[in-house]
Amino acid sequence: MLQNIKSWLLGEKLETNRLHEERFSVFWGLPVLASDAISSVAYAVEEILWALVPAIGIASYVFLPEIATAIILLLLILTISYRQIVEAYPGGGGAYIVAKENLRTELGLIVGASLSVDYILTVAVSISAGTAALTSAFPSLYTHRVAIALFLIALVTIGNLRGVKDSAKVFSIPTYAFILCVLILIFTGIWQASTGTITPMAAIPESSVTFGTQMITVFLIMKAFSSGCAAVTGVEAICDAVPNFKEPSVKNAKIAYILLALAVIITFGGITYLATIYHTVPNFHQTVISQIASQVFGKGFMFYAIQATTTIILAMAANTAFAGFPTLLSIIAKDGYAPRQFSLRGHRLGFSNGIMLLSIAAGVLVIIFRGETHLLIPLYALGVFTSFTIAQAGIFMHWVRLKPKGWQYKAFINGLGTIITFITVIVVAVTKFISGAWIVLLVIPLLVFAMLKVKSHYMIIAKQLDIPNDRIEHLKINLHRTSYVIVPVQSLNVMVIKALRYAKSISNDVEAFHIETHEGEADKLRAKWAKLNTDIPLIIKLSPYREITRPLIKYVNSNEHASKPRDIITILLPQFVVPKSWQMFLHNNTSLFIGSSLLKNRNIVVSLLPFYIDEKSEVYKNEILAEDE
Amino acid sequence: MLQNIKSWLLGEKLETNRLHEERFSVFWGLPVLASDAISSVAYAVEEILWALVPAIGIASYVFLPEIATAIILLLLILTISYRQIVEAYPGGGGAYIVAKENLRTELGLIVGASLSVDYILTVAVSISAGTAALTSAFPSLYTHRVAIALFLIALVTIGNLRGVKDSAKVFSIPTYAFILCVLILIFTGIWQASTGTITPMAAIPESSVTFGTQMITVFLIMKAFSSGCAAVTGVEAICDAVPNFKEPSVKNAKIAYILLALAVIITFGGITYLATIYHTVPNFHQTVISQIASQVFGKGFMFYAIQATTTIILAMAANTAFAGFPTLLSIIAKDGYAPRQFSLRGHRLGFSNGIMLLSIAAGVLVIIFRGETHLLIPLYALGVFTSFTIAQAGIFMHWVRLKPKGWQYKAFINGLGTIITFITVIVVAVTKFISGAWIVLLVIPLLVFAMLKVKSHYMIIAKQLDIPNDRIEHLKINLHRTSYVIVPVQSLNVMVIKALRYAKSISNDVEAFHIETHEGEADKLRAKWAKLNTDIPLIIKLSPYREITRPLIKYVNSNEHASKPRDIITILLPQFVVPKSWQMFLHNNTSLFIGSSLLKNRNIVVSLLPFYIDEKSEVYKNEILAEDE
Repeated sequence: MLQNIKSWLLGEKLETNRLHEERFSVFWGLPVLASDAISSVAYAVEEILWALVPAIGIASYVFLPEIATAIILLLLILTISYRQIVEAYPGGGGAYIVAKENLRTELGLIVGASLSVDYILTVAVSISAGTAALTSAFPSLYTHRVAIALFLIALVTIGNLRGVKDSAKVFSIPTYAFILCVLILIFTGIWQASTGTITPMAAIPESSVTFGTQMITVFLIMKAFSSGCAAVTGVEAICDAVPNFKEPSVKNAKIAYILLALAVIITFGGITYLATIYHTVPNFHQTVISQIASQVFGKGFMFYAIQATTTIILAMAANTAFAGFPTLLSIIAKDGYAPRQFSLRGHRLGFSNGIMLLSIAAGVLVIIFRGETHLLIPLYALGVFTSFTIAQAGIFMHWVRLKPKGWQYKAFINGLGTIITFITVIVVAVTKFISGAWIVLLVIPLLVFAMLKVKSHYMIIAKQLDIPNDRIEHLKINLHRTSYVIVPVQSLNVMVIKALRYAKSISNDVEAFHIETHEGEADKLRAKWAKLNTDIPLIIKLSPYREITRPLIKYVNSNEHASKPRDIITILLPQFVVPKSWQMFLHNNTSLFIGSSLLKNRNIVVSLLPFYIDEKSEVYKNEILAEDE
Repeated sequence: MLQNIKSWLLGEKLETNRLHEERFSVFWGLPVLASDAISSVAYAVEEILWALVPAIGIASYVFLPEIATAIILLLLILTISYRQIVEAYPGGGGAYIVAKENLRTELGLIVGASLSVDYILTVAVSISAGTAALTSAFPSLYTHRVAIALFLIALVTIGNLRGVKDSAKVFSIPTYAFILCVLILIFTGIWQASTGTITPMAAIPESSVTFGTQMITVFLIMKAFSSGCAAVTGVEAICDAVPNFKEPSVKNAKIAYILLALAVIITFGGITYLATIYHTVPNFHQTVISQIASQVFGKGFMFYAIQATTTIILAMAANTAFAGFPTLLSIIAKDGYAPRQFSLRGHRLGFSNGIMLLSIAAGVLVIIFRGETHLLIPLYALGVFTSFTIAQAGIFMHWVRLKPKGWQYKAFINGLGTIITFITVIVVAVTKFISGAWIVLLVIPLLVFAMLKVKSHYMIIAKQLDIPNDRIEHLKINLHRTSYVIVPVQSLNVMVIKALRYAKSISNDVEAFHIETHEGEADKLRAKWAKLNTDIPLIIKLSPYREITRPLIKYVNSNEHASKPRDIITILLPQFVVPKSWQMFLHNNTSLFIGSSLLKNRNIVVSLLPFYIDEKSEVYKNEILAEDE
């Protein structure tokens, strides 16, 4: 039944050689990979206002357009730089591979850690912002925002577990619908403002004394800029996923970059302009876009269309991370810096483990930060800009080293990119340090340390298991040894008979082992055993502390059972198997516990012999009882 | 290290034969078993007022003393009846055993289910009420009440996992301190009221329009009576735990019953009297006792002493359930109606599994009902009174059947008890049905059904495993068979060499089995295998869906490996064991997964062969490589 639910949720299993079918065109691919960057329009303007309005009030609307222009310029430089990275690295993997190959492995790991942190934040931020769009339209849902956010994460997770192509279809239409709605909003808003039919809303709440009383400082403007940088995160996603595009994938990816930049500039610029003329004030209960929309359209169809597409596109934006993170993690895992499970493709060819990890980590963040976008933003963007900087520096070195045609121009562009993104990193780290960036500055080195630890572990394992090539032919397999078998028994029953017979089939040296918790408890068993037609001795040990494994291990290691130190002792555990899995909970499952503790002992083999309990017939039992011919 | 934490939290392990040391005298035993009944004074009066005041306002204080008198009479009848049960059943087990032996097993199970539900509710209600006492003294803690309640549950759980005797000492002193504080409160309160130094508080809030407007109906009075019945729950605990008293345990238990009745009557009566003269009004933020205490003492030392001892005794009251529930469950489990694990004594001789189950179930209730005592009360008492009724009926039959000296008097008392408690059950079920009793009326039959299911499962297992006595001597153990061994291999390494050698030591018929996910993947392995000096064939199968277990099972069942149907096939899984357990997560642990799926196949033995990874030396590796002599 579980298998059926899985099939229904995730679709039928896919063969490995169907991998190439799971690629997308520019039209379907752009929304999947760029929905993060495009959707951030929905909260980037708001975050700039959160930094400004509570501090300097009405003066904010002077600085808002200037800050937005700086961010758009930043986006342009990044787009051009990243198009060059796509060209240089058509294999995907993006910043991590660029840094590892052109600079140092450690810098690659810093990129890997930074991007991972930011992918997780992308999911948490986008889903929280999407939920905010929903609760702006239906304020009564506000108290349930964490549950709504978790539900949305689950939805996106399932979509991604189904696989790349299906998710492209599911996620693209809402992205285009969002862009369309925002364009209508911008044009209607500008039209209304220019014809004077709508007056700007009463700007700053009078009640708040602290509003607008602070000095206009450089720090404040920098902080607003940092908050707005959320708008350009997600640019790396296309670059990381070049091979997911249909051939010619490099050309398609480069086209996607231009379209992405265009969409962001128009929507971000438009919303900024509207927020400036309408003097929108950020608050917890209604988003900035929602305020503008209700001002422009009233609470009619278009208002709800804006809220609906915003909710959906933000939920989908999380999808950018779901496309990027598992791929990145699989590349890191293939290099041995992350657990190997992340490099394996699942049921539907997606990297299911990476998808699940992302989903859980983002869910935890949403719970911790109570689903408030505004509280998550200070942690955001630092990771992405760190990786931007390192990637640009790497690609700069790439041009300088290889010197292809026109390398001076290319190196100049990426060099400029390096400097500008590096300055942004410093600005973001300093201005957001206290409000949350310190967490990221702590987590990234920890992740790098963990990755190095993982790598060294894999190296040790490989070394310990490796057989030198020249030794293989000299290894003897058949050493003509025998194994000793110990069968722990609780009582004399059909299952034990089956086990003893099996034990005799693999060795002549078999012993049965029984634990009594108080003296004399085993008398009944001893009497039954005497009646049994066998030469297998029954060893009985007292265990006053009601332990089972320890006395067994003690016995195995004792002088009584002194075999040659290299000999392997087989512990044969009879285990009955019940027809329904809930019935497992009705038994102590002692064998399974014994099994896992014994595995910690060298030169022991733990063998599990299942015996089937059939509720209807006694066929298995009779089979065993009949074998007395 | 885990072992050390366990020892520190729970104390050193205890031997089975130290069981008899863990018994208590009347002085130490009374508080452990009776703290539920005694502490319920802290909320029973409040619950009566909750039923009355919002409906009929000031008229409540006319009915309060009458309802309290009825409840005290009920308590007296119960005490006398239960003293007779102790006499008839000195072995403990209480209502469950009485019902099972004198009436029908099914009625015993109803008692078992009812009491279990009520034990869990006792913990949830007491801990919530204890938390309420604390938040009455420190109102700022109110928002953290769920966390506080869960912390208190954890504390009581640990106390009980340490064992019976220790917990008696920990829990007794606060109980006596509480009784003392309440006595001081009652005497001071009465003294002040009679000397006229304190005037009753302004009774009913004016703001509430609905207050005091309803008709005084029989239903209302009955509902108030039902709510107050919480005060007599917990009476059965002494009876269930007779053997926990020092010898002469019956006499000691009977003395404990008299002391219990006295303590409850005086404190419950006294608080009722004070609430009546002070016209206390129940509310969510301050308990009734807290209101009286602040009225009588002001917010001085005695006020905080009352709050502190109330908090502690209510937390301790949960302990009554912790003494009763695991014992009851162990008796039911020994009869096969509950999972057998509940009948096993843990580390410190307590029934740890029962303790853990109680703790988790109560924690869930606290979370669901947000730690509000008042919301939990409607579920309460129904279970206890059901068990009271059935137990009394059983003991009535006991006297009628055995006819000991003076049986007419004894049968009369228990017969009267049966009728009165049965009427109470009906009253409670009807008056509280809508506000929550329906949940209990649903859960009890479900639990009974589950218990019958569990029993039938155990019967089937026993039947399937049983060897008829006359067959034992005819069973042959050594059938001179051999086993086939299949060794799944991923690559050719030291661990695989160890596994192949072991395989050869238990059978001559060994095969290695490899999965490739695409054609040609296994070529490297095939080449290496050819170099190996062995006659073991390497079987390679293609698995396009990246599955491992299914192709293996298919191969085992295939014609290629057609052995006689009764033959057992050994699947030998080499598994490396890493030095630190976190490192397990860095590996696929394919063997463990293969192992558990294979166990579902008949006539397969799954053997795990561990290979140790040593981070420092290559001793294990060299040991294997050296065995080529």
